Amino acid sequence: MVVSTISPSPVLTQDDLKKLAAYKAVDYVESGMVLGLGTGSTAYYAVNRIGELLKQGKLNNIIGIPTSKRTEEQALSLGIPLSDLDTHPVLDLAIDGADEVDAYLNLVKGRGGSLLREKMVEGACRKFVVIVDESKMVKSLGGSGLAMPVEVVPFCWNFTATRLQNLFREAGCVVKLRVADGGGKPYLTDNANYIVDLYFKGDIGDLKVASDEITRLAGVVEHGMFIDMATTVIIAGECGVTVKNK
Amino acid sequence: MVVSTISPSPVLTQDDLKKLAAYKAVDYVESGMVLGLGTGSTAYYAVNRIGELLKQGKLNNIIGIPTSKRTEEQALSLGIPLSDLDTHPVLDLAIDGADEVDAYLNLVKGRGGSLLREKMVEGACRKFVVIVDESKMVKSLGGSGLAMPVEVVPFCWNFTATRLQNLFREAGCVVKLRVADGGGKPYLTDNANYIVDLYFKGDIGDLKVASDEITRLAGVVEHGMFIDMATTVIIAGECGVTVKNK
Repeated sequence: MVVSTISPSPVLTQDDLKKLAAYKAVDYVESGMVLGLGTGSTAYYAVNRIGELLKQGKLNNIIGIPTSKRTEEQALSLGIPLSDLDTHPVLDLAIDGADEVDAYLNLVKGRGGSLLREKMVEGACRKFVVIVDESKMVKSLGGSGLAMPVEVVPFCWNFTATRLQNLFREAGCVVKLRVADGGGKPYLTDNANYIVDLYFKGDIGDLKVASDEITRLAGVVEHGMFIDMATTVIIAGECGVTVKNK
Repeated sequence: MVVSTISPSPVLTQDDLKKLAAYKAVDYVESGMVLGLGTGSTAYYAVNRIGELLKQGKLNNIIGIPTSKRTEEQALSLGIPLSDLDTHPVLDLAIDGADEVDAYLNLVKGRGGSLLREKMVEGACRKFVVIVDESKMVKSLGGSGLAMPVEVVPFCWNFTATRLQNLFREAGCVVKLRVADGGGKPYLTDNANYIVDLYFKGDIGDLKVASDEITRLAGVVEHGMFIDMATTVIIAGECGVTVKNK
């Protein structure tokens, strides 16, 4: 793992830092690439930057694979040519944010609810560059005390939620069905499934074991742990931008 | 594994044999049980028999958990009280059919398309009694040359289907999207997902490894292999009814 640091000017805001990290990520983009386009406030800057470089003629022949409807709309408005995994099953590079990053560059993603599409796209990439601010760095996944999302089928979701909670009883896991904004109705993913959010008090343990145990449960569609997927993490912090490579 | 055989009368038809196997399975039912109710031509007889015994007062306090909409309707018409996994997360017994059974009582199920609901219900049972005719017995799963179904999310299903095929390249696997009756449209499961059918020429290999590899694929919801789930298999054949216990 190689670590490099760029020090920012003291007048930069948090948004400026995110932009700096995003621009640093776009340095990895080359003409002719098939690109996974991430979702969220940091990835937004990266997609904008790609559109800018295309317009300036500094990049060409880019094909984007969006990880959400929102990013699809943003990319279209910037004139980035788009495709999908069915047509382009191998991507050169993806750039996206994350909710948690551990020291081994394992991630928690999907608090935005689109973890399945993100995992499909980013699992098909040769390189996966993650952009985060330093608050997302954790000692171990689940360590932020925030949600680790699991997408489940609506059929008997409560049964599945209980099995998930029992799976991580020793880690003090508490589960909660995600509800839609402004109402008591369950939040629906792009795939019309529910999200059960897992909150951990203790350590999840071996992540690969945990991942297999979760996906083995009938009723689970996918979870938000992205293990051994990120190849580079770019961290925007008060002390500058740090690049960690796997 | 204990094997016992009951010889049928020579005048019994295939349907009579299925009924005999189903009745034999219902011998395992006791008053007060929470029961998983299977789907298909053989399970149909078992559900009917349970309704009959309830009416005769030979069974009472039964709660049924149906594995399909069809079985739910059948059970309701018979007056069998019904519930679901959310209310009854532990079942005493389930009785259901299967598409393939190997020597270790591992199954392929779900050619009828309801594999996810079946796996959720039958995975929550203390005892799981499977009823089949002898044509369903195979040397190894996939050996019948018929479909091993995998439920996938519609998003980029072709990408997922290709990954499934690549996973079992050495077993000569060919994949096919299941289409709805009487049209070119994809078949939709109860969970509004697609079914990709896998056809094997060779051996799948270690079933648990294969199972984990399939469920690890983002885009896969569940597959039709039921490994280490059946506790008893009742086989109706020309030479009678055979009972195999795990």
